[in-house]
Amino acid sequence: MAYQEFTIEGRNAVIEAYRSGKTIDKLYVLDGCQDGPVMTIKREAKKQDTLVKYVSKERLDQLSATGKHQGVIAVAAAYEYAEVEDILRAAEEKGEPPFIILLDNIEDPHNLGAIIRTANLAGAHGVIIPKNRAVGLTAVVARTSAGALNYTPVAKVTNLAKTMEELKKKGMWFVCADMDGTLMYQLDLKGPIGLVIGSEGEGVGRLVKEKCDMVAAIPMQGNIDSLNASVAAGVLAYEIVRQRLMPV
Amino acid sequence: MAYQEFTIEGRNAVIEAYRSGKTIDKLYVLDGCQDGPVMTIKREAKKQDTLVKYVSKERLDQLSATGKHQGVIAVAAAYEYAEVEDILRAAEEKGEPPFIILLDNIEDPHNLGAIIRTANLAGAHGVIIPKNRAVGLTAVVARTSAGALNYTPVAKVTNLAKTMEELKKKGMWFVCADMDGTLMYQLDLKGPIGLVIGSEGEGVGRLVKEKCDMVAAIPMQGNIDSLNASVAAGVLAYEIVRQRLMPV
Repeated sequence: MAYQEFTIEGRNAVIEAYRSGKTIDKLYVLDGCQDGPVMTIKREAKKQDTLVKYVSKERLDQLSATGKHQGVIAVAAAYEYAEVEDILRAAEEKGEPPFIILLDNIEDPHNLGAIIRTANLAGAHGVIIPKNRAVGLTAVVARTSAGALNYTPVAKVTNLAKTMEELKKKGMWFVCADMDGTLMYQLDLKGPIGLVIGSEGEGVGRLVKEKCDMVAAIPMQGNIDSLNASVAAGVLAYEIVRQRLMPV
Repeated sequence: MAYQEFTIEGRNAVIEAYRSGKTIDKLYVLDGCQDGPVMTIKREAKKQDTLVKYVSKERLDQLSATGKHQGVIAVAAAYEYAEVEDILRAAEEKGEPPFIILLDNIEDPHNLGAIIRTANLAGAHGVIIPKNRAVGLTAVVARTSAGALNYTPVAKVTNLAKTMEELKKKGMWFVCADMDGTLMYQLDLKGPIGLVIGSEGEGVGRLVKEKCDMVAAIPMQGNIDSLNASVAAGVLAYEIVRQRLMPV
């Protein structure tokens, strides 16, 4: 897992980057520059909510790696996905039973970021997300993760149920959350475990739920249906932490 | 605590509502209506990200309470704050020791909404927020609370430390979260308790912290500093739930 910043310089290159859907974290523009291509770039920046800084030519020259910035330098982020193997290796290197958080179609980038942050602090060895539908590692996710994305590997897999099947062959157990489950305090969550968190609206999908060995219920006393997905992930992840830290 | 929707009808009344900073949840506009005042209203709606629906005259007439809508009807929300007494009474009526969540300057409306949602499901009797600086009960908070704002009373107080002082005289204990505290599993959180959550950036303020009887630490194993505020609130609230549900 690596978080790398790189710069894109020159008008066409920056316009191209925006058009290709790349996430630009920051944009430096020569102060006072108002011509057509620069206005186009500023419009794109506004659309994508990029942080724009107006700077002097000296500052741009200083930031430039190529010397050919033409008045615009964009700072983009690249996030590299890890492999599931990397996550297992991280657990092995620490001499701990694997603890992985799997997200079944979390669509809100704030939730994904907050869950990666929780994974890091709860001592999970990594996060697995599915390729389709779910949100990827955007700049919002990186920001909301408060730096955790630099440390906690995130793997993207084609088929979550299939990945779970393979991990079960390697001795992992899976627990998902559902109201009809067993009270989480009564489950044994101390071994090699994958915690599956469903999407806000639909919960855990049927195929994924079928692969789960345990269904955990968070006790609910109120009037509404469910916790926010990142809060539910936090409460369950910390029940795993508690059981590992405080064996009865 | 009550969540009430009310409608504002007529061009001037709606413009006035926007200008006074009222939160408009939804705006009905006569389809095809393009004159000056309506364009002004549409601009304000865009600024505030109001959901705009273009409807027929018949639909507007149907929605109208006054019959004088002039082509625009706004739906606004009013959230009534509770008193601290209401929260204590709710606990008494349920025959439970009071469990209150106090927020020391949470500024993110998503976090406030998620914490009210957690308060509801963890069985807290209410939430207390300070009057100054912190975010209030906006439409975003209501939405993020997923309906919990309709059930869980939220009181706004001038001075959080002073309110804590008064509640301590009534037998309540206060716990706040900090890394230098006692591991939360080792504290007794079963009695009448106020859980204090600090702001994302600064944590719990000094004056408020001095009023706390206990400082709880969430075990942290990772590389970064802290959990998202709403996740931390969830983890701590559920440690209180666990101790109350599963007395050793």
